[in-house]
Amino acid sequence: MAVVTDFIERKTSGFNDMHDLTADVAAAVQKSGLRDGTATVFAPGSTAGITTIEFEPGLKRDLPEFFEKLAPQNKTYHHDQTWHDGNGFSHVRAALLGPSLVVPFSDSQLLLGTWQQITLIDFDNRPRQRRIVVQIIGE
Amino acid sequence: MAVVTDFIERKTSGFNDMHDLTADVAAAVQKSGLRDGTATVFAPGSTAGITTIEFEPGLKRDLPEFFEKLAPQNKTYHHDQTWHDGNGFSHVRAALLGPSLVVPFSDSQLLLGTWQQITLIDFDNRPRQRRIVVQIIGE
Amino acid sequence: MAVVTDFIERKTSGFNDMHDLTADVAAAVQKSGLRDGTATVFAPGSTAGITTIEFEPGLKRDLPEFFEKLAPQNKTYHHDQTWHDGNGFSHVRAALLGPSLVVPFSDSQLLLGTWQQITLIDFDNRPRQRRIVVQIIGE
Repeated sequence: MAVVTDFIERKTSGFNDMHDLTADVAAAVQKSGLRDGTATVFAPGSTAGITTIEFEPGLKRDLPEFFEKLAPQNKTYHHDQTWHDGNGFSHVRAALLGPSLVVPFSDSQLLLGTWQQITLIDFDNRPRQRRIVVQIIGE
Repeated sequence: MAVVTDFIERKTSGFNDMHDLTADVAAAVQKSGLRDGTATVFAPGSTAGITTIEFEPGLKRDLPEFFEKLAPQNKTYHHDQTWHDGNGFSHVRAALLGPSLVVPFSDSQLLLGTWQQITLIDFDNRPRQRRIVVQIIGE
Repeated sequence: MAVVTDFIERKTSGFNDMHDLTADVAAAVQKSGLRDGTATVFAPGSTAGITTIEFEPGLKRDLPEFFEKLAPQNKTYHHDQTWHDGNGFSHVRAALLGPSLVVPFSDSQLLLGTWQQITLIDFDNRPRQRRIVVQIIGE
């Protein structure tokens, strides 16, 4: 058993910007040399989230539209009255989706469905440089 | 420390079909022979999710009604315009709920609340044969 | 590699009561003596959830208001018709947010963002004594 901590760097544009991390997470599992275990994908910061989705152009519009309706940008948030950074909506969306995803692997292969991609969503209201954690525990 | 990868098979009917997986996950923990660690429950595929809920008839109606209101079926999704499979709503719901749940166990017992059941929700718009991953890491 | 199971006790008041658990989880990691691994934070029970958020006064109002709008208290739930405990809304919110969060740590430090706090939200409709699980797996 061993723990390997790795990182994925991504420039993001915010406003529900979606990034497919699947190949990077799979590469981190390969690089770890571990055969069976879990890959924990974690977004440090409070305005981004991690989930899985079929990463295709239609859903890349549907999911942002869904979040825009769920926690609209053009609404007054108490957070903005405190900090005046205008990203209250980003924090609410990120807290709901959550920053962590745990994907099991076996024989060094992620046990994802064929049309299921590990996805970072950046909810912030400005470009960011994200450093996503991929921590692999296994044997 | 060891890693044990197991699977739970379920025939599902879609449209928010809920399945209580608690007994199966508990059995997988017992079978692993491990005493302390985590059970990662993971749904491969992009139209199902895993969470916990009190698995009783009232909530088995409330949660589906909630998801129907949140991401309605009878709305136009860009996903459907691409693929014409009519399950855009399923993808959005599944991405929001998330495919992974991690439950700690101690003395080979899942540390769940008394009224808290591990639950698969199939959001797809057709029957599926699901193969849920239960991966146990512990000692 | 080792597994350490710890607990955080909190008196909660319900109705989206939010508690910052970051210092307690960090202390549990320190106490474990482990350097690299994951901390699984898990809420036993079906009316509370765990996520991360910037724990500041504005968002401590925004997130509750968001959940109140998402799954309102003053709506009829089938759960309440069964049990007459009036907390159907609590169960729906908790199932959506989810009871588990996995945070990686390295050099005995949680890999959180600067403004990202591990947060318990109690959705129940009455005060509770919560015992949150923190299970640390690492080396």
